[in-house]
Amino acid sequence: MKDLLGGKGANLAEMCRLSLPVPAGFTITTEVCSVYYRDGDNFPSPSLKKEVHAALAQVEKIMDAKFGSAQNPLLVSCRSGARVSMPGMMDTVLNIGLNDDTVKGLIANTDNPRFAYDSYRRFVAMYGDVVLGLKPESDKDHDPFDKILEDLKKSKGYEYDTELTTEDLQGLVASFKSIIKAKTGQPFPEDPYDQLWGAIKAVFRSWMIPRAITYRQQNHIPEHWGTAVNVQAMVFGNMGEDSATGVAFSRDPSTGENYFYGEFLVNAQGEDVVAGIRTPNPINRAKPLPKDVDATLADIMPDIYRKLNNIRSILEKHYRDMQDIEFTIQKGVLWMLQCRNGKRTAHAAVKIATDLVKEKLITRQEALLRIEPEQLTQILLPIFDEKDPIYKKRSVIAKGLPASPGATVGKVVFSAADAEEQAQAGEKVILVRVETSPEDIKGMYAAKGILTARGGMTSHAAVVARGMGRTCVAGAPINIDYNKGQFTNEEGLVVKAGDCISLDGTLGEVIVGAMPTQQVAQSEDFNTLMDWVDENKQMAVRTNADTPHDSEVARLYRAEGIGLCRTEHMFFESDRIDHIRAMILADNEEGRKKALDALLPMQRQDFYGIFKAMDGLPVTVRTLDPPLHEFLPHTDAEIATLAKKFSIPLNAVKDRINALKEQNPMLGLRGCRLGILYPEITAMQVRAIFEAAIKAASENIKVLPEIMIPLVGNEREFAAQKKIVDQIAEEVLSKSKVDLHYLVGTMIELPRAALVADKIVQAGAEFFSFGTNDLTQTTFGLSRDDSGIFLPSYLKQNIWARDPFVTIDQEGMGQLIEMGVQKGRSAFSRLKIGICGEHGGDPESVVFCYKSNFDYVSCSPHRVPIARLAAAQAAIMAKSQGGGSKKGKAKVGSSSRPSKGKAPKAINPLAIKAVANLKPQAPKNVGASSSKESSSKLKTKGAKALQVKASAKKAIDALKSDKRGRPKKNPA
Amino acid sequence: MKDLLGGKGANLAEMCRLSLPVPAGFTITTEVCSVYYRDGDNFPSPSLKKEVHAALAQVEKIMDAKFGSAQNPLLVSCRSGARVSMPGMMDTVLNIGLNDDTVKGLIANTDNPRFAYDSYRRFVAMYGDVVLGLKPESDKDHDPFDKILEDLKKSKGYEYDTELTTEDLQGLVASFKSIIKAKTGQPFPEDPYDQLWGAIKAVFRSWMIPRAITYRQQNHIPEHWGTAVNVQAMVFGNMGEDSATGVAFSRDPSTGENYFYGEFLVNAQGEDVVAGIRTPNPINRAKPLPKDVDATLADIMPDIYRKLNNIRSILEKHYRDMQDIEFTIQKGVLWMLQCRNGKRTAHAAVKIATDLVKEKLITRQEALLRIEPEQLTQILLPIFDEKDPIYKKRSVIAKGLPASPGATVGKVVFSAADAEEQAQAGEKVILVRVETSPEDIKGMYAAKGILTARGGMTSHAAVVARGMGRTCVAGAPINIDYNKGQFTNEEGLVVKAGDCISLDGTLGEVIVGAMPTQQVAQSEDFNTLMDWVDENKQMAVRTNADTPHDSEVARLYRAEGIGLCRTEHMFFESDRIDHIRAMILADNEEGRKKALDALLPMQRQDFYGIFKAMDGLPVTVRTLDPPLHEFLPHTDAEIATLAKKFSIPLNAVKDRINALKEQNPMLGLRGCRLGILYPEITAMQVRAIFEAAIKAASENIKVLPEIMIPLVGNEREFAAQKKIVDQIAEEVLSKSKVDLHYLVGTMIELPRAALVADKIVQAGAEFFSFGTNDLTQTTFGLSRDDSGIFLPSYLKQNIWARDPFVTIDQEGMGQLIEMGVQKGRSAFSRLKIGICGEHGGDPESVVFCYKSNFDYVSCSPHRVPIARLAAAQAAIMAKSQGGGSKKGKAKVGSSSRPSKGKAPKAINPLAIKAVANLKPQAPKNVGASSSKESSSKLKTKGAKALQVKASAKKAIDALKSDKRGRPKKNPA
Repeated sequence: MKDLLGGKGANLAEMCRLSLPVPAGFTITTEVCSVYYRDGDNFPSPSLKKEVHAALAQVEKIMDAKFGSAQNPLLVSCRSGARVSMPGMMDTVLNIGLNDDTVKGLIANTDNPRFAYDSYRRFVAMYGDVVLGLKPESDKDHDPFDKILEDLKKSKGYEYDTELTTEDLQGLVASFKSIIKAKTGQPFPEDPYDQLWGAIKAVFRSWMIPRAITYRQQNHIPEHWGTAVNVQAMVFGNMGEDSATGVAFSRDPSTGENYFYGEFLVNAQGEDVVAGIRTPNPINRAKPLPKDVDATLADIMPDIYRKLNNIRSILEKHYRDMQDIEFTIQKGVLWMLQCRNGKRTAHAAVKIATDLVKEKLITRQEALLRIEPEQLTQILLPIFDEKDPIYKKRSVIAKGLPASPGATVGKVVFSAADAEEQAQAGEKVILVRVETSPEDIKGMYAAKGILTARGGMTSHAAVVARGMGRTCVAGAPINIDYNKGQFTNEEGLVVKAGDCISLDGTLGEVIVGAMPTQQVAQSEDFNTLMDWVDENKQMAVRTNADTPHDSEVARLYRAEGIGLCRTEHMFFESDRIDHIRAMILADNEEGRKKALDALLPMQRQDFYGIFKAMDGLPVTVRTLDPPLHEFLPHTDAEIATLAKKFSIPLNAVKDRINALKEQNPMLGLRGCRLGILYPEITAMQVRAIFEAAIKAASENIKVLPEIMIPLVGNEREFAAQKKIVDQIAEEVLSKSKVDLHYLVGTMIELPRAALVADKIVQAGAEFFSFGTNDLTQTTFGLSRDDSGIFLPSYLKQNIWARDPFVTIDQEGMGQLIEMGVQKGRSAFSRLKIGICGEHGGDPESVVFCYKSNFDYVSCSPHRVPIARLAAAQAAIMAKSQGGGSKKGKAKVGSSSRPSKGKAPKAINPLAIKAVANLKPQAPKNVGASSSKESSSKLKTKGAKALQVKASAKKAIDALKSDKRGRPKKNPA
Repeated sequence: MKDLLGGKGANLAEMCRLSLPVPAGFTITTEVCSVYYRDGDNFPSPSLKKEVHAALAQVEKIMDAKFGSAQNPLLVSCRSGARVSMPGMMDTVLNIGLNDDTVKGLIANTDNPRFAYDSYRRFVAMYGDVVLGLKPESDKDHDPFDKILEDLKKSKGYEYDTELTTEDLQGLVASFKSIIKAKTGQPFPEDPYDQLWGAIKAVFRSWMIPRAITYRQQNHIPEHWGTAVNVQAMVFGNMGEDSATGVAFSRDPSTGENYFYGEFLVNAQGEDVVAGIRTPNPINRAKPLPKDVDATLADIMPDIYRKLNNIRSILEKHYRDMQDIEFTIQKGVLWMLQCRNGKRTAHAAVKIATDLVKEKLITRQEALLRIEPEQLTQILLPIFDEKDPIYKKRSVIAKGLPASPGATVGKVVFSAADAEEQAQAGEKVILVRVETSPEDIKGMYAAKGILTARGGMTSHAAVVARGMGRTCVAGAPINIDYNKGQFTNEEGLVVKAGDCISLDGTLGEVIVGAMPTQQVAQSEDFNTLMDWVDENKQMAVRTNADTPHDSEVARLYRAEGIGLCRTEHMFFESDRIDHIRAMILADNEEGRKKALDALLPMQRQDFYGIFKAMDGLPVTVRTLDPPLHEFLPHTDAEIATLAKKFSIPLNAVKDRINALKEQNPMLGLRGCRLGILYPEITAMQVRAIFEAAIKAASENIKVLPEIMIPLVGNEREFAAQKKIVDQIAEEVLSKSKVDLHYLVGTMIELPRAALVADKIVQAGAEFFSFGTNDLTQTTFGLSRDDSGIFLPSYLKQNIWARDPFVTIDQEGMGQLIEMGVQKGRSAFSRLKIGICGEHGGDPESVVFCYKSNFDYVSCSPHRVPIARLAAAQAAIMAKSQGGGSKKGKAKVGSSSRPSKGKAPKAINPLAIKAVANLKPQAPKNVGASSSKESSSKLKTKGAKALQVKASAKKAIDALKSDKRGRPKKNPA
């Protein structure tokens, strides 16, 4: 019932159903939130009020306390809870029900005035913050309540909050209330019901605060879903030494090992943990204890621990996944506050998924759905050692786009030539350029990483780096001065050639100095999982590879062919570039042919190597694509050298270079336009392909060439190029005895190609490969090399939910793709369809391709495993859901039915069952150990013993928080 | 029956029906051609053979002669004839039936051995050429028959063919036959039936020769239409002084005056006229005779002339349009060989159409359909005086793209500054640039014409020139050396600054020296026609205007509002560019705002002027669109000046300029992306618009502002900009008492915008304007500035039927436009939709916009009348045809039903009635004058008297030929 109760509410209800000890409470459903907004920020009273009060009365009955009572007061919390977790995005109010009367009851009940006033002052501040909106105006401003607290501590000479006396706390309550009066003009509401309704309203309102709206837009959560409100009796972990609070994971979230992992703090509330003054202890001795730690929960509260451990196994069996749980022990009584599927590292995800299959808790298909494909990069690439103190103290001097993942370290060089030279001398180097161009290819290959000052996720540097498996940070805010051989960051910090830097291609960080890296070996479990991938996957996964080496790497990752071999990358080798340049500078066909004749044997050798490496698998070769000027030199010195070498007047060379200059090269003379103007180029390339194929075939290599024509916009372009291919193929093949089957197809990378796809097939195209890089550029009118200037602002303003060069824009460009598929197949139903743009390695885009009935996707060698997993997930989801839901994949392990985009049912406010009571369980009924706990058994080894390393806690927090590292707000 | 008989056959049949004297003959229908190709170049024999022979027998009977008879031979011609005229594209064979036997009969019948052998040698050569394929291999090669003829003439010392003796001709026949034997291995076919079938086949085959295929593709004539073959008895205008041949127009094709206009040659065949050795005489004295001419047809054959004049009025009444007729007089007997609607100049077209309405022959609607909209440029712009001897001897040094029409003369300057300076000094100048950029605007305005070495039909130079009404030749093959202040053409001819050149913007010619121009005044008839346009037009025609002056010009042309006001053009004025530069160089919002504050009053004044000029009409203002770097200087000197002026370090200026440089500016930071990154720019512009609007409104000017957001790709971009517009509008308007209605809309110029058009409307867009320049660029992946390199080759190879920047690509981009309209209107049914790309002034595109239910088109001021006429035609055609046919418009005055694209009915070859006999009329039955002609009445004033100026004949030929100036082939 997540749709109605929200994730938190549903899990609490589920724990109740499992007879676990959950503090009594109820949930106001998400439908109420929808009505609240529909009616202009109004409750659907009076029915709601009636129901809430009735539910509260039941809570009072169960908890044997009375809301607002000065004798035996019930305190409650109000927590948000949407269908999917929106960590830290919305508001929470704790300790509702406290006022000058009820605080007395609390003192009486707990015999702890300090605790009572501490709770009171926290409540007043939180209420002021959340309900009355007295928040700091910006991140730099101080919270008004914090300021009073700090001032008090300063005046008293206290360091820690714990030094505050009961009187101090009582004083704070008064000061806080007068601030509220002064700032809002209204006194602090003493009536507990006013407090409760204020809090409920605040939680609803927090659905619409900017950070929540942004988060929803970024995560495609519909606004109409709304949030539920969980009203629950408070329990306290800070009622003394027999109280505690903690979090635990049913397995190790970082390694996936199957032991009970968790931490706790005696006499503490969640807030204290966040404050970071005290650090928690492990709950057991499953792993060796850190130094200075000698007490675990199992040691000091063995019965409670046994109960908790029992709950762990109940929950794992029930949810069939590793659980993240929060608990509080109040005066020796265990209460469960939350449980949910736990976040985990990639390694843990793989281990847990395969273990759960071994334990027969889940199927192989379910196991595959438990891994986020993108996580696999963590397994496949080296990463920085986050635990190393050097890394922890790192200085990030710039943050660019995470263009190609991995972690790498090297000396700064500023030219491709330097990179090659120093790499040959055994140096590890990082190539730093304003932007890269095809002539930098060898230098990029020689370098360990690439850093550019300009360009987006599909800039030349990014694309090539991903293809090569090199780490790359692109478009970093640095200022490069090639003459001085240095770059500066925004703060003016200077990095010179030869200085050592580290690049984090996953985070986009540029770090000074050498960070320690670690290469994580691929595990047995990983290979098992990949076998299951192949059992379930239906769509093929090919690779984009331009060299025999890349082809071999891709085969190791089980690529099922080459989806894109860019012939032009072969031209940049030093022994070839001159011939290419001679061809370009020739002013007649004869001159071009001569130069092409010299290139022929070289290209033939390249193709032979690739065919050999891909024996038995299809190889798609694209004919020449980039504008010719990319092959020409740019500096005056290089141009002079070239003129001298070819004995052409300098001016003639310059004229030719100028003539080839284009305003918008991306929209200029490139792709098949080259082959149509200079058919001899296409002819040479096709001849090289078929001569290589025959040579390979004669050595019993199985060759399946697929010739691909780029940048086709109409059927006549395609027909003209296909004619050349067929003529040359016929000519070459007829001379040999080899019977070779080949295909001729086209890229669909212009909107017009998608619009007339049927005509292109009628003109003879045997396959389509969607070139989504160019298609994105033209559909959006967006240069991938230039978008970097405004992309960050666009993402920040949420004008684009994501970078369209990374994930296929299904809403817009997706229409063109679907049109292309539909029209193409309408002309030839068995038309082979693939994708070779960068999106071919993006999991969400892979799912889209699967749904669009693609035959294959093709991606960089290093992304092949990711694409394979995504393809397998797509197939599994389609099978189980009859079509599959894109979001389903992200909801790893969730058992909810897909509900994205469903319009809410019409709601009659009067008919709402607003409240779903949590059927509370008496603590005594919990699990196997049934005996009553006695708080007297609680023992601690003193405060000092509990001060374990802060880092461990931080790591857990990180796992529990969203990816951006925002701390989970207000844990109980 | 044009579909079945072809144009020529149908008109011949029609003349027969009108009882006009047409030589007997029959037509083999187009269906036979289709079957011929369907069956692999085979006739659907034997039925066809039987029918043809039967028809021939009937011709023999009527003409009282026998095919193949040595005594009284019948000779026939074989001519092609498709549904629509394909002038000179297909083949013709004359004098079929001649052989060594029948030539004797011809001699006997005519008593003219020289004529007989002249006919014979012509026939053998033509047969060798056309039927046996002994054509020259390339344009440079000699025709083998011509070579023999030329050799003979050389050896005999002859200058003209007329000097050849009967024996010479007899010898030529023998030589020609031996060549045929030698080259084909087969003797020349002596059997007349073999000759006939060979000729029929050759005409069918000529449907598939490359030039015919290309012509069809360019003119969208379906291949399956096929050609008919007209077999007709030969008549001879070269049988002596009582014979003649001529052409005539029922009205003057150059002025449209209503008198009988024509020329003839005594004792001549059509071929002689083409050879150009003799020049024809006028047929009457309606106009003063040229010098040296003192004989007309009316003088020397008055009866024949009367008959012909009578036929003229019969045909005009019948066809209700000016007719182009061909006639031959054989031994005093008049024969009609052809009639069709005559080609005419724009002025003639206007005069004839309005006259025909006055004469009550046609309706106003029909009159409007008689004018090709594109022709109006001839009326609106100055042209060169083609009759002037200076023009005739002109030296065209380069031919570029006809980027902006008109004819202009001026001194060459190489910079915008020079253009301004010299224009102020009273010089007429032509600005010559490699390409132009926005900073050249003022120079372009100052110049009379613009010549560029680079760029296509929608390059900056072309677009701006058309907008300003300046003549422009773009992308001419010239090499500009700014340093030397000169340019050279491909032959190395040098033109220096200050030299005088002439530009023909309609032909794309660059001419040395000053050509005489003439400005043709707009006639009364033109204004009448334009009134009729307004009576019939439904779609509005607006203009693209950036200044009050342009707005006023457009109003004169009856523009109904401004569809595009490009605010950026205002920024290039010298008093503004500095503020814009200051804004760009500012590194914070405050600096930008300061610069913008300085611009505000200037923009306000601009808008005020435009609102005033367009009082009562809507004005669409587009917010800033071009990339910022367009406003920055490029040369080091300019940059240094700028740095000094703003007291900014030179390096800082350079850095900023470099930072703004883009790989593909067309796809970069421009359009609404600028307004989203720098909302203060949009805010300033909107403030200027509304402050200007209020000022104007307070002066009782009716202001209808429509704010247009450029380059929108998704609804959030639009919403973000609309929010600024609405906020500023509210702020400004609320201060005044003026009640102003305004619209906020968007350009649809990216494929994605069309794909999500419904969402953009849901986000509040109140109108769409299709920006088809950018939409073409992105749909095709084609930069308008760079396409010039391969566009000519693409058009030549027929990969594109036409330049997509000139005429909307209906097949591809048209889908996106229709999708945009459909989706936009699905969200808001009354959404206002227009177009403001260059296509808005292209007649065919205007028709497409009408059919797509646009509310308006917008184009350059000087194209407004053209667009208006096209819009009226679209409405008329839609009304009369229930949807209209695009091709209908091109077929001016044709009464044929639209049949484009209709698939042919299935044909059963056996059932074909292949032959439609032309019911021949005895000459004596013709017209009013019924008496028998006597050849004895024929008089001539001798050969010399007939040698009128060749130019007149050439002019007629030009009118009779297609636009490319290809001479009409083989007139009889």
